[in-house]
Amino acid sequence: MSDAFFHPVSGLDLPRFAGVPSFMRLPHVAPGHDRFADVDIGLIGVPWDSGTTNRPGPRHGPRQLRDASTMIRAQHPTSGMRPFETVNCADLGDVGPNPADIIDSMTRITAFYDGIKSAGIIPMTAGGDHLSSLPILRALARDAPLGMVHFDSHTDLYHSYFGGTMYTHGTPFRRAVEEGLLDPRRVVQIGLRGTMYDTEDRDFAAANGIRLILIEEFHARGVEDVMAEAREIVGDGATYVSYDIDFVDPTFAPGTGTPEVGGPNSYQALQVVRALEGLDIVGADMVEVSPPFDPSGGTAFLGVSIMFELICVMAARIAASR
Amino acid sequence: MSDAFFHPVSGLDLPRFAGVPSFMRLPHVAPGHDRFADVDIGLIGVPWDSGTTNRPGPRHGPRQLRDASTMIRAQHPTSGMRPFETVNCADLGDVGPNPADIIDSMTRITAFYDGIKSAGIIPMTAGGDHLSSLPILRALARDAPLGMVHFDSHTDLYHSYFGGTMYTHGTPFRRAVEEGLLDPRRVVQIGLRGTMYDTEDRDFAAANGIRLILIEEFHARGVEDVMAEAREIVGDGATYVSYDIDFVDPTFAPGTGTPEVGGPNSYQALQVVRALEGLDIVGADMVEVSPPFDPSGGTAFLGVSIMFELICVMAARIAASR
Amino acid sequence: MSDAFFHPVSGLDLPRFAGVPSFMRLPHVAPGHDRFADVDIGLIGVPWDSGTTNRPGPRHGPRQLRDASTMIRAQHPTSGMRPFETVNCADLGDVGPNPADIIDSMTRITAFYDGIKSAGIIPMTAGGDHLSSLPILRALARDAPLGMVHFDSHTDLYHSYFGGTMYTHGTPFRRAVEEGLLDPRRVVQIGLRGTMYDTEDRDFAAANGIRLILIEEFHARGVEDVMAEAREIVGDGATYVSYDIDFVDPTFAPGTGTPEVGGPNSYQALQVVRALEGLDIVGADMVEVSPPFDPSGGTAFLGVSIMFELICVMAARIAASR
Amino acid sequence: MSDAFFHPVSGLDLPRFAGVPSFMRLPHVAPGHDRFADVDIGLIGVPWDSGTTNRPGPRHGPRQLRDASTMIRAQHPTSGMRPFETVNCADLGDVGPNPADIIDSMTRITAFYDGIKSAGIIPMTAGGDHLSSLPILRALARDAPLGMVHFDSHTDLYHSYFGGTMYTHGTPFRRAVEEGLLDPRRVVQIGLRGTMYDTEDRDFAAANGIRLILIEEFHARGVEDVMAEAREIVGDGATYVSYDIDFVDPTFAPGTGTPEVGGPNSYQALQVVRALEGLDIVGADMVEVSPPFDPSGGTAFLGVSIMFELICVMAARIAASR
Amino acid sequence: MSDAFFHPVSGLDLPRFAGVPSFMRLPHVAPGHDRFADVDIGLIGVPWDSGTTNRPGPRHGPRQLRDASTMIRAQHPTSGMRPFETVNCADLGDVGPNPADIIDSMTRITAFYDGIKSAGIIPMTAGGDHLSSLPILRALARDAPLGMVHFDSHTDLYHSYFGGTMYTHGTPFRRAVEEGLLDPRRVVQIGLRGTMYDTEDRDFAAANGIRLILIEEFHARGVEDVMAEAREIVGDGATYVSYDIDFVDPTFAPGTGTPEVGGPNSYQALQVVRALEGLDIVGADMVEVSPPFDPSGGTAFLGVSIMFELICVMAARIAASR
Amino acid sequence: MSDAFFHPVSGLDLPRFAGVPSFMRLPHVAPGHDRFADVDIGLIGVPWDSGTTNRPGPRHGPRQLRDASTMIRAQHPTSGMRPFETVNCADLGDVGPNPADIIDSMTRITAFYDGIKSAGIIPMTAGGDHLSSLPILRALARDAPLGMVHFDSHTDLYHSYFGGTMYTHGTPFRRAVEEGLLDPRRVVQIGLRGTMYDTEDRDFAAANGIRLILIEEFHARGVEDVMAEAREIVGDGATYVSYDIDFVDPTFAPGTGTPEVGGPNSYQALQVVRALEGLDIVGADMVEVSPPFDPSGGTAFLGVSIMFELICVMAARIAASR
Repeated sequence: MSDAFFHPVSGLDLPRFAGVPSFMRLPHVAPGHDRFADVDIGLIGVPWDSGTTNRPGPRHGPRQLRDASTMIRAQHPTSGMRPFETVNCADLGDVGPNPADIIDSMTRITAFYDGIKSAGIIPMTAGGDHLSSLPILRALARDAPLGMVHFDSHTDLYHSYFGGTMYTHGTPFRRAVEEGLLDPRRVVQIGLRGTMYDTEDRDFAAANGIRLILIEEFHARGVEDVMAEAREIVGDGATYVSYDIDFVDPTFAPGTGTPEVGGPNSYQALQVVRALEGLDIVGADMVEVSPPFDPSGGTAFLGVSIMFELICVMAARIAASR
Repeated sequence: MSDAFFHPVSGLDLPRFAGVPSFMRLPHVAPGHDRFADVDIGLIGVPWDSGTTNRPGPRHGPRQLRDASTMIRAQHPTSGMRPFETVNCADLGDVGPNPADIIDSMTRITAFYDGIKSAGIIPMTAGGDHLSSLPILRALARDAPLGMVHFDSHTDLYHSYFGGTMYTHGTPFRRAVEEGLLDPRRVVQIGLRGTMYDTEDRDFAAANGIRLILIEEFHARGVEDVMAEAREIVGDGATYVSYDIDFVDPTFAPGTGTPEVGGPNSYQALQVVRALEGLDIVGADMVEVSPPFDPSGGTAFLGVSIMFELICVMAARIAASR
Repeated sequence: MSDAFFHPVSGLDLPRFAGVPSFMRLPHVAPGHDRFADVDIGLIGVPWDSGTTNRPGPRHGPRQLRDASTMIRAQHPTSGMRPFETVNCADLGDVGPNPADIIDSMTRITAFYDGIKSAGIIPMTAGGDHLSSLPILRALARDAPLGMVHFDSHTDLYHSYFGGTMYTHGTPFRRAVEEGLLDPRRVVQIGLRGTMYDTEDRDFAAANGIRLILIEEFHARGVEDVMAEAREIVGDGATYVSYDIDFVDPTFAPGTGTPEVGGPNSYQALQVVRALEGLDIVGADMVEVSPPFDPSGGTAFLGVSIMFELICVMAARIAASR
Repeated sequence: MSDAFFHPVSGLDLPRFAGVPSFMRLPHVAPGHDRFADVDIGLIGVPWDSGTTNRPGPRHGPRQLRDASTMIRAQHPTSGMRPFETVNCADLGDVGPNPADIIDSMTRITAFYDGIKSAGIIPMTAGGDHLSSLPILRALARDAPLGMVHFDSHTDLYHSYFGGTMYTHGTPFRRAVEEGLLDPRRVVQIGLRGTMYDTEDRDFAAANGIRLILIEEFHARGVEDVMAEAREIVGDGATYVSYDIDFVDPTFAPGTGTPEVGGPNSYQALQVVRALEGLDIVGADMVEVSPPFDPSGGTAFLGVSIMFELICVMAARIAASR
Repeated sequence: MSDAFFHPVSGLDLPRFAGVPSFMRLPHVAPGHDRFADVDIGLIGVPWDSGTTNRPGPRHGPRQLRDASTMIRAQHPTSGMRPFETVNCADLGDVGPNPADIIDSMTRITAFYDGIKSAGIIPMTAGGDHLSSLPILRALARDAPLGMVHFDSHTDLYHSYFGGTMYTHGTPFRRAVEEGLLDPRRVVQIGLRGTMYDTEDRDFAAANGIRLILIEEFHARGVEDVMAEAREIVGDGATYVSYDIDFVDPTFAPGTGTPEVGGPNSYQALQVVRALEGLDIVGADMVEVSPPFDPSGGTAFLGVSIMFELICVMAARIAASR
Repeated sequence: MSDAFFHPVSGLDLPRFAGVPSFMRLPHVAPGHDRFADVDIGLIGVPWDSGTTNRPGPRHGPRQLRDASTMIRAQHPTSGMRPFETVNCADLGDVGPNPADIIDSMTRITAFYDGIKSAGIIPMTAGGDHLSSLPILRALARDAPLGMVHFDSHTDLYHSYFGGTMYTHGTPFRRAVEEGLLDPRRVVQIGLRGTMYDTEDRDFAAANGIRLILIEEFHARGVEDVMAEAREIVGDGATYVSYDIDFVDPTFAPGTGTPEVGGPNSYQALQVVRALEGLDIVGADMVEVSPPFDPSGGTAFLGVSIMFELICVMAARIAASR
C-alpha cells in the first residue's frame, strides 16, 4: 500500500474541475520536497518543442495533459489495479527548458533526469516533442543501453535535417543508437506509416537490427500477436517505452504536429499498453501532444488515459518485485 | 399509414437548412394541441443538466439535436422503413425544467411524462443529462417495473456523491431500482469502460442481478452476439431503452461531459439499435449530448441518426401490433 | 517588501507555459499550510455555476483563469507597482462546491471565507457564476454591511426565477441587501444594459437607494467622471468590488453565459479598476468567466489582467496603511 | 396592447435554452395560419446565399438568428418599450428558396412578400445574403419607389460580376434603382470602407444622387450627426432599412462573408438604429450573417439585438399612428 | 524518370510550412506555360459549390487541399513508389467558375478539361462539390462512355430537386448516364448509406445496371473482396474514379456538407485506392471537401493523402505502359 | 504605371477563393525569375518563430496571410491609390529558415535580404516572430543605421532571456542598436502596455534616446498627434517600419503569441499607417501573426489590410520620387 500522502483527490469529494491541476490530482513534489525520496513513479512535464520541424505546439502539452488528467479516477476498469494506492506516485513538476537554445535545453533535461534516476524514481514523462526522449535517455541509460518499445507513425531515425541539423524530433533515436543509449537489437517500432522522404531511416534500422512493424502488418496481425513479438524483442532487460501520440490515428488524436492517417483507434491505443505487463520498464514517455491543434482537449484526454495504463503496468511490476 | 398531417417536410421541397427546426421536421404538437391524442411516438426535449457532476452542457442538447435532425430524411437505407408514414410521430416540445432546483425539475418532468403515458404516446426523449431518465421512469413505470437496455460507458449505479447527494447523473438507475421502477434482472448495461472510483456500483449490480457487459467483452464477442443476449435478458416484457451518447467512442461523439476512450464506432452505434427490433419498447432516450463540447454538431448528428434508428424499431413494433 | 517565499516564478527564468499553473504563478498555500497566516491577499477559486439560469460553464472558470494568469508578469506598466513584492499574495486553492446542491455549496463557500476573514486575508476570488458573491458576502459582511462597486451589464437584483426560486445568479444582491450584507446607499452598479424582463430589479434599486449607471450614461460621461462618483458613493467605508466579466462588451469577453452587446472595451475595463485606488477594499471577485464559450482563452486573459489591476489597487492600500 | 397570443415566452418561466426556437420566442404563424391577418410585424427568414461571390454561408443565417433570439427579453433597456406587447409580432417562418436556381428563388421570395404586403404586415427579414433585398423590394415597392437607409461596408451598386452576371450580392441596389424600386435621391449608404475593385459603383451613386457616407466621415462626425442627415435624406416617405451585418467591424461581427476592418463597434451598431425613430419604415432586413464563420454565435446575437432595436422603432411608429 | 523541373520541394530542404502552397509542392504550370505539354498528371482545383443543396463550402476545398498537401512527402510507405519522379506531375491551377451561374460554370469547366484531354494530361481534380464531375466527364468522355469507380455515401443519381432543378450535386451521374458519358454497366458505387428521400435513385441504378454496394455489404465482405468485384466491373476499359470525401465516416472527414454516419475509417479510405492498381484511369476527382466544417484541416489532410494514393496508382500504370 | 505583368488577378474575373494563393494575388517572382530586377516592392514571407519565448505559431503566418490577402482588392478606399498599377509589386516567396537552428536561420534571412537590397527592391515582409526583424535589418542597414517607427505592445529591447540567451523575440532591437543598425534617436515605439518583468528595457531606451509612447498617452493624444511626433522623430532619413500585430488589441487580433489587452482598435490600426505618408520607408514588416491562435483568420485579414496600407504609402513615395 502506498502512503496516504500520495493518494490523489477523489472526484466524489472534490469535483474534477476544481483545484490546482496536478497530474492525476497527485501531490506536487518537486525535487527538494521532503517526500521526494519516497516517490516510486514520478510524473514529469517536459514543455519543449524546439526540435519540431513542422507545426510547433508540444511545449503546451504538459499543461493540457495535467488539466485532462483530473478526469482520471483511481481504479483500472478491467484489472482492478489501484496504482496510486499500490505505489507512491507524484507530480514532480516540469523541467524548465530554454525555448531558444536546443543544446542548453537538452543539458537541463538530462540534469533533471539524472536526479530522478539517482533517486530511484521511475519517470513517466509528458512531452514535449520527440526530441525530448534523447536527453532523458542520456540520463536513464548512463550505465547501460536500454531496450525500447516505440509506438509511432515515424521512425525518428533520420540522420539530419535542413542540411546537417542533428537535433530535431526526427532524429532522436538515431542519436540514441549512435551514443550507445539504446541497444538496437532490443528496439521495436510499431505503427509506422505515412509518406516518406526516402528510405534512409529504414536503411539505418535494417543495418542495426531495429525491428520495424508497419501499420499494414499491425492491422493484419492484430494487437495481441504484434505485442507478443514486441515483448520478446525487448525481453527481460531494462526497457524504455516511448509513446508518440501520432501512433494513434489523427482522427482520434488530432492534437499533434505531424499526423499520418490510417492508424490505430483509441481502443487499440490502450490495448498495446496493457500488453506490456511484466516488462522491466525503467521510464516511459507520452510525447507530441500539441494543444494548439486540438483546443477541445480530446487528444490530451486520450494521452492521459494511455499514461494511466502505463502507470498501472509499471506499478504492477514494482509491486510484484517487492 | 400515418396521417399526412404528421409527415415531415422533405428536403427535396424545402432545403434542409430552412424553416423553424422541429425534431425530424415533424409538426410541433405540444400537449393541448388538438392532434395530441393522435400521436403514436412523441419526440420530447428535456433541456436539463443539473445532475451533472463534471462538465455541464446537456441542457443545450435538445436544441442542437433539433437542428441536426433536419438532416434526417424519410426512409431507412436498409430496411426501407418509412417510420413517419407508418405511425404518427410529432415533436411534443420541451419539458420546462427549473435549472436551479433539482427536485422541482424532477417533479415537472414526471408530470409531463405522466401526461404522455396517459395519452398512450411512446416517448422518444432527447436529453438532458442522465438524471433525466429517473423522473421519466417514475412516470412510465408507475404501474409496473420495466426492463432496460442501457448503452453507456458508465453504470450510473452509484449510491451518492459529494458526501450524500442522492440525485446526480451518476445515480439514476440506483434510485430507479430502489424505487421499483426497474426490474434489475431484466436490465443489461452495455459498453462499460473507463477508470473507476471504486467497485461500489458493480457490487450493487452483482447483488441485484443486473448484467454488465464491459467494452472488452463487447469488442470480443461483436454486436450480434452481445445484442442477442441483451434481447434475451429483457425478453418480451415492457422495456425502456436508455442511450447515453458516451457509449460511443468520444472521437465519434466528442460532445459529451464524461468521455471514456476506447468505445464503439459510429457503425456499431447504429447496429446495436437495429438489433433491438421486436422488443416491446415503451420509451427511449438519447442523453448526455453536450453542444458546448462539440460546436460543429457532429455528435448531435450521430445522436439523431441513432434516434431515427430507435424510431424505426419502435414504429415497426407498433405497426406489427396493429 | 513581501517575503521571497511569496514571489511568483518569473517568465525570464521558467517559460510561462511551464509548471503546475497556480494563480499568477504564486505559491499554493491552502488553508492549513504553515504560511497561511502570513498571507495578505489570497487568490481563491470558486468553481461553481449552479445558480446559472441560462448557459452554464463558470465552474470551469478558475482553472482557465489560473492557466491564463501565468502570462501575467511582476510589474504594473504605468504605476510601477510590483504587488507580489509589496504584500504577501498566494493561491489559496479552490473552495470545493457540491455541483448538485445549491444550499450545501453556499454553506461550504461561506465556511471557507469565514476562515479567510478570520485570518485577516483579503480575498480576490475567481468565480464561478455571480451567485458566488452571496455566500462570500455572508462571511465578509458578518460584522457590518459593506459598500459595493459592482461592474456588470445586469443588476442581479431580481426577486426570484421560475416561480419562486430564490437563489440564482440573477438574485444575489437582492438577497444580500435583504440579509443586511450590503448597505444599499453605498452600492453602485455600472454598465447596465441589455433587454429586460421587466423593471422589478430597477424598482428595488430605486426603493433602496442603489445607484444604477446605465451604459449610455457611462459612454456619455466617460470613465473618469463616472468613477469619481462611484468612489464618492462608497466613500471611506469597507467596500466589496464585484466584477462580472459581462460588464465588458462580449466581443472582448465572449466567454460568458449571458452576454449583452454594446459594452465597454478592454481599455475601459482596466481603467475603471485603476480608478478604485484608495478605497478600503475588503474583498473582490471576478465572476462569470465561462471557458466553454471561449476555448481560445482570451476572456480569461482579460479576466486575469483585470485581477492584476485589482490586486495592485489592494496592495497599494495595504502598503499605505502600514 | 397586443393580443396575448402574440406574447413571447418569458425566460423567467421557461429557460431560454428550452423550446422549439422561433424568432424572439414568438408564435409561429405561417401564411395560412388563422391569426396571420392579425400580424403587424412579421419576422421572416430568407435562408439563401446564391448571390454570394466569395464565402457562402448566409443560407444558415435564419436558423442561427432564431437560436440566438431566444436570449432577447421583453423590454428595451432605455426607452422602456415592450414591443411584443405593443403590436402583434410573429415568426412567419422561412421563404423556401431553390439553392440551385437564382431566378426561381427570386420569384419565390417576391411571391412570398407580395402576400406579406397584401396582408398589411411589415416584414423584418433575417437573411440571407444581400441579394435577398432585391426580390423583397420588388414586392414592397410594387406601387411606388422607396427611400432607403442602408448600413453596409459596401455599396452593392456594381453593374455585374464575372463577365456579365447581373444578380449577385454586389448588385442588388443597382438593379433596384434601375427597376424603379428605390428613389436614389432618398437613399443613403452608411459605413462604406474596404479596398475597392474600381469606382464604378461610386460613379453610379454620384450620377443618381445616392448619398455615400464613408467610414472616415462616420467616425469623424459621430452617430448623432450622421443619422440626423440620414433621417433628412429619407424624409417622411416610405422607407426601407437594409442592415448588412458587415457594416459592423468584423471583430464584433466575424460571421460574415466579406468583412472589412475598421468599422463601427457594437454600441454604435445599436445607436444608429435608435436614431431611426419616427421614420415610416415599411420593411427592414438584417442580412449577411454567416454562421460557418462564427460557430460561437456572437454575430447572430448582435444581429438579433439589432433586430430588436429595429422592431422597437417600427412598433413605436405603428403605435403612434393608431 | 521524370524531369527535375517537376520534382516537388522537399521538407528536408524547405520546411513544409514555407513557400507559396501549390498541390504537393509541385511547380505551378497553368495552361499556356511552356512546360504544359510535358505534364503527365495534372492536379487541378475546381473551387465551385453551386450545385450544393444543403451546406455550402466546397468552393474553398482546393485552397485547403493545397495547404494540406505540403505535408505530403515523396515516397509511398509500402510500395516504395516515388510518383513525382516517375511521371511528370504539376499543379495546373484552378478552373475559374462563376459562382452565380451554374450553366456558365459548367461551360467553363468543360472547356478547361477539353484542353487537358487534348494535351494528353490525366487530370487529378480537387473539388468542388460533386456536380463538378459532370462538366469534367463531358470533356473526358467526349469520345466514348467511361466506366467509373465511385466512392460515396450517396448515389448522386437523383432526377431533380426543388421541383425540377436538373443540376445539383445530387444529380450528376444521372445526367452523365443520360448524356452517354458513363456506361452504367461499368459503374460501381461503393459505401452507400444514410437516410433516403425515396428509392428513385436506386430504381434508376437497377434499371440501368449500375452496381450499388451498401455500407453493410462493404463492412461484411471487407475491402479486398469488394474491390476485386469493383475491378471486375470496370474491367480493362477507360475508367473514371470519383471519390466523394463523404464516403469516409464523418468523424474521420467532418469537413463535408452532407455527412452520413457509419462509414469506413481512414485506413480503409486508403486501402480502397490501392486496390485500383492496374486500372486504366483516365481521370480522378476528390470532391466535397468543405473547409468551413473542418477548420482544423484534418479532412483536407485525409483528402490529399487519398489523392497521393490515386496519383501513385495512376503513375504506376503510366510507367508500366511505357 | 506599372507593368501589366505585375497586376494582380481581379475578383471580378476569378473569384477570390480560387487560384494558387500568392500575396495580394500578385505574380510569384522568386529570386532568379527573369522579372526579378523589375520589382519595386517585394512581398516576402519569413515563416520562422524560433525566437518565440512563449506560444509559438508565427512560422505559419506567411501562409495564412497569403490566403487572407486574396480578399484585398486593387484600390484604396479613400486615397484612390491603386498601388499595384503604380509600382511593380510581386510575391518573392519565402525565405527558407532552419527551424532547429537560430543562428543558421538568421544567416539565411540576412543573405536573402542582401539580395533584395542589392536589387533595389523595398521589402514588405510578412513574419515570422519579431526576431525576424534583426536579420532583415542586418541587410537593410548594412550601409548606415536606420530610423524606425515601431508599433508594438512591447519594446523588444530586453538584454537576454533564460540566463543569457541573446536572440529571442524580446531582444531584436536591443541587438540592432548595439550593432549600429538603428539610430536610437530616430526610433519611436508606439502602443506599449501590459505587465512588465522589470524596467530594464525602458532604462535602455531612456539611456539611448529611444522615444516610448505608452498606450495611455496614445489614447489620450489620439492618432493624429502621436503620429505627427513620430514623423518628426524619424524625419527625412531612411526609415524602417516594424508592425507587430500585438500592437492592436488582442480582441481585434487574437492570433498572436503574447497578447496585451487594452490596445488600439482596427480603425486606429489602419490610421497610424496612413499617417506615415511621405516618409522614406526602406522596408517594413508585419510580424507575430500566429494562425494557431486564430483559426478563423480574422487576424490575418487585419494583417494584410495593414500591409495594403503600408504598400500604398510606399508606392506613393516611390511614384513621387520618379
